[in-house]
Amino acid sequence: MKALLLIAHGSRRQNSNDEIRQLTLNLKQSGGNGFDLIDCAFLELTTPGISEQIDKLVDEGATEVILLPYFLAAGHHVVKDLPVFSEQAKVKYPEVSFILTEHIGANAGMLPLIMQLAQR
Amino acid sequence: MKALLLIAHGSRRQNSNDEIRQLTLNLKQSGGNGFDLIDCAFLELTTPGISEQIDKLVDEGATEVILLPYFLAAGHHVVKDLPVFSEQAKVKYPEVSFILTEHIGANAGMLPLIMQLAQR
Repeated sequence: MKALLLIAHGSRRQNSNDEIRQLTLNLKQSGGNGFDLIDCAFLELTTPGISEQIDKLVDEGATEVILLPYFLAAGHHVVKDLPVFSEQAKVKYPEVSFILTEHIGANAGMLPLIMQLAQR
Repeated sequence: MKALLLIAHGSRRQNSNDEIRQLTLNLKQSGGNGFDLIDCAFLELTTPGISEQIDKLVDEGATEVILLPYFLAAGHHVVKDLPVFSEQAKVKYPEVSFILTEHIGANAGMLPLIMQLAQR
């Protein structure tokens, strides 16, 4: 059972966190693209947290979890904090496969997206 | 003369800031897509700042400046801070047109980008 966990920074502004939750819903509603479970987690400032959501996905039967950092640049959080969560999850659930992807900002597809928005 | 200013948060980690600078270079090298000038600015933690870069673009002859918030969610910075910079620029340079776009995370194109990264 394959799961996708979108990991965002989290904000003090609830509308901002709701935007991530809505995006997660949109991802689910888009058909899941091969993922049985899709959820989001926040690094700080709001909940649910990353460990909590990993526990939930494993409880729900995930055997493979893709951890996707929804961050634009590889700052301290991406480089230092997120790998710790990934390593802890591997130790806690050795029977589950955890894959921490690149952050979304490293995606070459950001370029056309920027130009599309700039030219609107 | 049309200018695009990509506005990022800024990080204490220089590699992260360099990633934004490299992205800006890539945007320029992609042909500019109708923009004569393309640059980036940082809200905090590093330089150049937003006001400084707006001054530079106007000095270079920009008559229209697209201010593009390179942020994933509409947190405090996007909702409160960036409009202030935009309004200040309009007052300082009434002969120049400033347009503050949506933040990049509001772009519907983020969905396929996430799935592309998740499925790699």
